[in-house]
Amino acid sequence: MLRARTLLIAVAICFTSASAVAEAPSKPPDPPLAHTITLRASTLPSGQMAYEMVSHKVKSPDGRERDITALYATGPTIPGPTLVLKEGDTAEVTLVHGLADSPQPVSIHVHGVHYKIDSDGTMKVLNGTADEAAFPGKPYTYKWIAAPGTAGTWPYHDHTFGNPMVGAEDKGLFGTLIVNPASGKVPALIDGKVVDVDLSDIKREFILWMHETTFWGQELNHIIKGDKEVPLWTNPTVGARLGELVRFHVIGIGTAIHSFHLHGHRWIEPGTTSVIDTFHVTPISRQAFVVKAGEGVGPGDWHYHCHVIQHMQSGMMGTFRVIE
Amino acid sequence: MLRARTLLIAVAICFTSASAVAEAPSKPPDPPLAHTITLRASTLPSGQMAYEMVSHKVKSPDGRERDITALYATGPTIPGPTLVLKEGDTAEVTLVHGLADSPQPVSIHVHGVHYKIDSDGTMKVLNGTADEAAFPGKPYTYKWIAAPGTAGTWPYHDHTFGNPMVGAEDKGLFGTLIVNPASGKVPALIDGKVVDVDLSDIKREFILWMHETTFWGQELNHIIKGDKEVPLWTNPTVGARLGELVRFHVIGIGTAIHSFHLHGHRWIEPGTTSVIDTFHVTPISRQAFVVKAGEGVGPGDWHYHCHVIQHMQSGMMGTFRVIE
Amino acid sequence: MLRARTLLIAVAICFTSASAVAEAPSKPPDPPLAHTITLRASTLPSGQMAYEMVSHKVKSPDGRERDITALYATGPTIPGPTLVLKEGDTAEVTLVHGLADSPQPVSIHVHGVHYKIDSDGTMKVLNGTADEAAFPGKPYTYKWIAAPGTAGTWPYHDHTFGNPMVGAEDKGLFGTLIVNPASGKVPALIDGKVVDVDLSDIKREFILWMHETTFWGQELNHIIKGDKEVPLWTNPTVGARLGELVRFHVIGIGTAIHSFHLHGHRWIEPGTTSVIDTFHVTPISRQAFVVKAGEGVGPGDWHYHCHVIQHMQSGMMGTFRVIE
Repeated sequence: MLRARTLLIAVAICFTSASAVAEAPSKPPDPPLAHTITLRASTLPSGQMAYEMVSHKVKSPDGRERDITALYATGPTIPGPTLVLKEGDTAEVTLVHGLADSPQPVSIHVHGVHYKIDSDGTMKVLNGTADEAAFPGKPYTYKWIAAPGTAGTWPYHDHTFGNPMVGAEDKGLFGTLIVNPASGKVPALIDGKVVDVDLSDIKREFILWMHETTFWGQELNHIIKGDKEVPLWTNPTVGARLGELVRFHVIGIGTAIHSFHLHGHRWIEPGTTSVIDTFHVTPISRQAFVVKAGEGVGPGDWHYHCHVIQHMQSGMMGTFRVIE
Repeated sequence: MLRARTLLIAVAICFTSASAVAEAPSKPPDPPLAHTITLRASTLPSGQMAYEMVSHKVKSPDGRERDITALYATGPTIPGPTLVLKEGDTAEVTLVHGLADSPQPVSIHVHGVHYKIDSDGTMKVLNGTADEAAFPGKPYTYKWIAAPGTAGTWPYHDHTFGNPMVGAEDKGLFGTLIVNPASGKVPALIDGKVVDVDLSDIKREFILWMHETTFWGQELNHIIKGDKEVPLWTNPTVGARLGELVRFHVIGIGTAIHSFHLHGHRWIEPGTTSVIDTFHVTPISRQAFVVKAGEGVGPGDWHYHCHVIQHMQSGMMGTFRVIE
Repeated sequence: MLRARTLLIAVAICFTSASAVAEAPSKPPDPPLAHTITLRASTLPSGQMAYEMVSHKVKSPDGRERDITALYATGPTIPGPTLVLKEGDTAEVTLVHGLADSPQPVSIHVHGVHYKIDSDGTMKVLNGTADEAAFPGKPYTYKWIAAPGTAGTWPYHDHTFGNPMVGAEDKGLFGTLIVNPASGKVPALIDGKVVDVDLSDIKREFILWMHETTFWGQELNHIIKGDKEVPLWTNPTVGARLGELVRFHVIGIGTAIHSFHLHGHRWIEPGTTSVIDTFHVTPISRQAFVVKAGEGVGPGDWHYHCHVIQHMQSGMMGTFRVIE
């Protein structure tokens, strides 16, 4: 079981370094942070487009600044870098045009948070104001406010769509923004009861985008491999230790309608008291949920997949490996 | 900005006349009203079918009767006239056959409210009782009760479907029934908090039907243009002033599955505490939600669209114009 | 009205025998039961596959054992036998391979309840452990625990899918597991108010699976015809007496996305306070809901159908017959 052993080692690293990433989980609420982020839209060898982290700096109200760029994967990834804010934070996100041999504009439209119309990431034909996109040699800057009431998992994606009526959101230019609640707590079904769990007790977070007949995955940066966000690419195996709290973020994009199912686990449909193990995913609808890995079922290779037969037949599936 | 100026003037008219429409928003609950409505199923020049308001009278328990037919658009529209009841109200709805050169029966099947089987709007082949439809020269009358517990936004549509297995619900014969709660209040996410807002504080209401790859819109009659319900036809621009409470009613029909998204705004998924800015729409599923126009984001041309790429490419989109 | 008369007689039988089936609905909670079940995967004359009840024994903690096999339909049915547990119960389910002239493995993957990885019902290619399926002459046994927090309506189905990427879940090998809550109560919208109703007050339960363009139905065994679970096959007429509490369990399977609608009735979306009469059904998503038959609308042939026009045109519909 080489894979399992590797995971154990990685976890040890994680426990050491996680505290450096999650800032001061002490009693008083964290002060709001100002994030300055630069992303680049690049071309993958496959010809797909992808966002890439260039720089992420975080400033506290007391003026302290930290550079957390090293927490991200190197190079463009699908999905793009997962950005994590907290209610109250602000972000200034600059997009650099880095497509090879293409004058095609690229943009970032974000969901959920507040921003003025000039940060909408759409083209003038839609917003009536400006082409809010990066062009070769001309970056574009978006300003976001994670105001109270915007906690949640939100997609960000290209929105140059408009004229002509094509864009790049379904060609790889999509990523995830997580706004954690100021309370620091999220509801979860644990041992058969709905309780609030501390975000600081969540040991792993996985992003799974459902695009047509493929899952595109990512593991967040405060976890396994030396703090770095880990691109998992297509239909990945994701792993956890038995009993760990794990948060999944599942988001759709493209044209297909999906039905996400994870074997052996169940959770609360967000905002309700409904216990489920399967849910609808339409493009850009999303669901974040917390499970206790292997709760009541033990370790194993727990299958996850789209339950639309047509998509299963195209291989839209992966494994949630729970080890002791 | 001619359009903005026009809107401002129209709003002024609205403020004057709205009080004549919304009856006595004082403390004691409104007495239940008896509505007598006549609709006609007509043919549009395009060949599509559409419902048309012929007459709408409202009787109070004290015997007072008012004719509010003038509040509706003139001529057939898609969607059909939006009918607004309150929990406790009753309605007698007569449908007149007005199709040009066609003996095809037409009917009204309504969702949500109470009615006996002879008001189901189906054919005898389905209900075992009668062909509950209008034929040339033979109107049909339906009786509805907006009983307690039926508050909500509900579709009404042709249901002659049965034998043969075709009908006219996806050929234009659909419209909206709003049953407002007796409490006069609906939940909304305002400034990041879930609160109950008074219906009388809602300044604008927009209906958006999602049919295959097109939005069909309507603005309710107590708003902009001299009280009249305004047909907005396909993929409309809808407008509001910054800070106004606006209620959207989004309903699906036909065969396609949709994902509704409005830029720059977020709201509560009905009956839950889940904050969303995108939701699934299958045929006849619907969602009504309230936003404060431009809250936290300011004025602008806020794009709304189906997030299914295939449908975006077919132009399934419009604008929510928020002006100062 | 011969049909109505037959139903009345059947109901009388039901009232007599139901008490023998539902164990001791007195005050102290029922002790947890241990179920030992044998199912066979068989071939129907049509060539479709179907699960068939071979044997179901129930053991109380005091050692008493009852054989309730006679409560099930004889022969294979689509959907397969509906298994009813209660939170706290356990089940050992053995699957026997009974396909005619086929070495193809068959399995049971269940949703919602707890089980170890060797009861997952998947093939080794997915679970990394074993081919958890029945082969000719080699049955396979699954162990389920209906732990607290697993109450709900859950699908079970073949999951030999994996290598090759085909399976039998959409060829007839699917059925329903109901885990009733330990509280013995479920929420329902009755006379316009959300209340908790006793499960022992529910008089009828109908299962409706939505597969591509067809409903496949079943009536549970504690109801009409001499206690036996009644297979209703495709697009059935289901019946109830006016005012009876009826629970529907609607589940999707296959590739199509559906929109379930029942005429003249409305209910609460599970886990929310949202009143609906239509809901989304994606493969394996499900919704169980309680209505009071004919509440506010009286007797009649109340149509139910998928509201996707394409599916209606293929005859995806049936009748909920409410008689006085």
